[in-house]
Amino acid sequence: MTTSSEVFAPVKWEGDALLLLDQTRLPVETIVLTIETAEEVWAAIRHLQVRGAPAIGMAAAYGLYLGIRQLEAADAGAFRELLHQRADYLATARPTAVNLFWALDRVKARIDQEGEKPVDVLKAAVLDEALAIQREDAEVCRTIGENLLTLLNDGMGILTHCNPGALATAAYGTATAPFYLAKERGWNLKVYADETRPVLQGARLTAYELQQAGIDVTLICDNMAAMVMAQGKVQAVIVGTDRVAANGDVANKIGTYGVAVLAKAHGIPFYVAAPLSSIDLETATGAEIPIEERPAEEITHGLGKQVAPDGIQVYNPAFDVTPAAYITAIVTETGIFKPEEIGKAKP
Amino acid sequence: MTTSSEVFAPVKWEGDALLLLDQTRLPVETIVLTIETAEEVWAAIRHLQVRGAPAIGMAAAYGLYLGIRQLEAADAGAFRELLHQRADYLATARPTAVNLFWALDRVKARIDQEGEKPVDVLKAAVLDEALAIQREDAEVCRTIGENLLTLLNDGMGILTHCNPGALATAAYGTATAPFYLAKERGWNLKVYADETRPVLQGARLTAYELQQAGIDVTLICDNMAAMVMAQGKVQAVIVGTDRVAANGDVANKIGTYGVAVLAKAHGIPFYVAAPLSSIDLETATGAEIPIEERPAEEITHGLGKQVAPDGIQVYNPAFDVTPAAYITAIVTETGIFKPEEIGKAKP
Repeated sequence: MTTSSEVFAPVKWEGDALLLLDQTRLPVETIVLTIETAEEVWAAIRHLQVRGAPAIGMAAAYGLYLGIRQLEAADAGAFRELLHQRADYLATARPTAVNLFWALDRVKARIDQEGEKPVDVLKAAVLDEALAIQREDAEVCRTIGENLLTLLNDGMGILTHCNPGALATAAYGTATAPFYLAKERGWNLKVYADETRPVLQGARLTAYELQQAGIDVTLICDNMAAMVMAQGKVQAVIVGTDRVAANGDVANKIGTYGVAVLAKAHGIPFYVAAPLSSIDLETATGAEIPIEERPAEEITHGLGKQVAPDGIQVYNPAFDVTPAAYITAIVTETGIFKPEEIGKAKP
Repeated sequence: MTTSSEVFAPVKWEGDALLLLDQTRLPVETIVLTIETAEEVWAAIRHLQVRGAPAIGMAAAYGLYLGIRQLEAADAGAFRELLHQRADYLATARPTAVNLFWALDRVKARIDQEGEKPVDVLKAAVLDEALAIQREDAEVCRTIGENLLTLLNDGMGILTHCNPGALATAAYGTATAPFYLAKERGWNLKVYADETRPVLQGARLTAYELQQAGIDVTLICDNMAAMVMAQGKVQAVIVGTDRVAANGDVANKIGTYGVAVLAKAHGIPFYVAAPLSSIDLETATGAEIPIEERPAEEITHGLGKQVAPDGIQVYNPAFDVTPAAYITAIVTETGIFKPEEIGKAKP
């Protein structure tokens, strides 16, 4: 793994390697990782160097190619067995991210479709499928953005949480897509970005990418969202999601649920931007979604210096679940859905 | 101003100087400031080295003594004029903290009562009044704690925000007082402490002092409070206050209002611990309370490293106002009051 300092998209296949923008180094440093093994992809996903549901899926698909491109296999059956082993391994990098499993499954399905072709052809098909996932993601994001834009008006204030942004996807982002499209149309939206403790993806990533794009963005601490709402500065909340359950419950970055409760208390619509790949109809309700707990040090030491006493007890869930009752609409590339009708989103 | 490293109470008059525990250095370093001028007190209040409404009041009263003890005045009238000038100066250190004004006014009233005594006697009376303020505060806190304890039961989970703790007062704290008293009774309360961005008084101070006292305390980020409530881990919220308006609206550290909205949504009682000195019946409603905005750098750079891009717009209100409708009860040293009846709290 080497590093360089050029600026580019967060996930990119170039030559024989995967280039990942190290999002843990933003907003101060722009570092691009050149990644050549599945183990490096696993670590990059695990350590949040690549994050955001769609980008994780893309990275995992490329990681699967990196994991099998040099393996020797006697025939297509033996190759598939190795492919599945590598996919199982990559799936362990983040237990909550359904896009990770979706992308890996999609590549496996493609190879199943290819039938008994030579192993080199199957290897090329793995890469081809990874590239297709990325190409399609950009189109999905743009369409989600167009659908969300029909719910908004010029001049609105909009609050978002975490980084459901271009940095999480191939382009546009999910929840941020309407901000970029509104900018293209000459609208003036005023975006409030929660900093999103403990890992500060809102401060480091959302504030960074929207500022870069010339969008009017104001950074606040998570605990200021309620006051900004009470002041009448916010007319809509838009967030992303890591997984939507069949009943419309939504798992997303910790803090999302609280924002949803606050939005409801202030009569503000709460929208979830959800590519179909994040909708998991096999999961009946949010209660079935496993919630990853992360190390105490993210809270006690994660910001450059120690901010809590040695040995303090910490509870650090990475995600929460927002019940469908708090969600005004879930917006996908196929349309705008009430949460309880999310099953209709998939064609 | 010199420093030493012994551990002791946050505000203490010793010999000829005021000793202040530098709360901006906790929880990693215990640094005691030896303060000998009013200007140093002003700066310590302004820079949060001493914070919490009661402790600010105590420090200001001692600061007033430091500001006049070496002044020359021809008679009691001239002395009072100088005293008022120094009080006006100290009152500018924190515009939202009513205890600051209360303590300064109390010292001025005492000197008015003393009449036309010699200047040296009046100077001694200023110090005597500051010492009385501190002595009475310890008793007030204990009584608030006993009143709050009647609302709680052994085994409860309780969420608190910011540091309404012993570090903010002479002893016990306000909102934390029942935790210390419960510990004395052998109860097992489980306290959840919001870290309280941006200045992290919950992580640095509340977690520190409760851990030191052997109380079961768990640190969470502010945006985790909603999830902890939804999990049924919290049976009551107790917070402090910087100012209570006549209609029962409560100004407190930014984030308090959001916690109150969340508590109501989850059917959890929300209690405010308020010494009478923080109740300002001259302020009709919370809308009249000025909200201090603090520097952007507290959010973008305040934690030891840069966490947001250069030049980002930031909104950083230091306080918010919780409307009376979200408050179950306000608990003072004179009893437990519905917020709309807070006028009855003052004898």
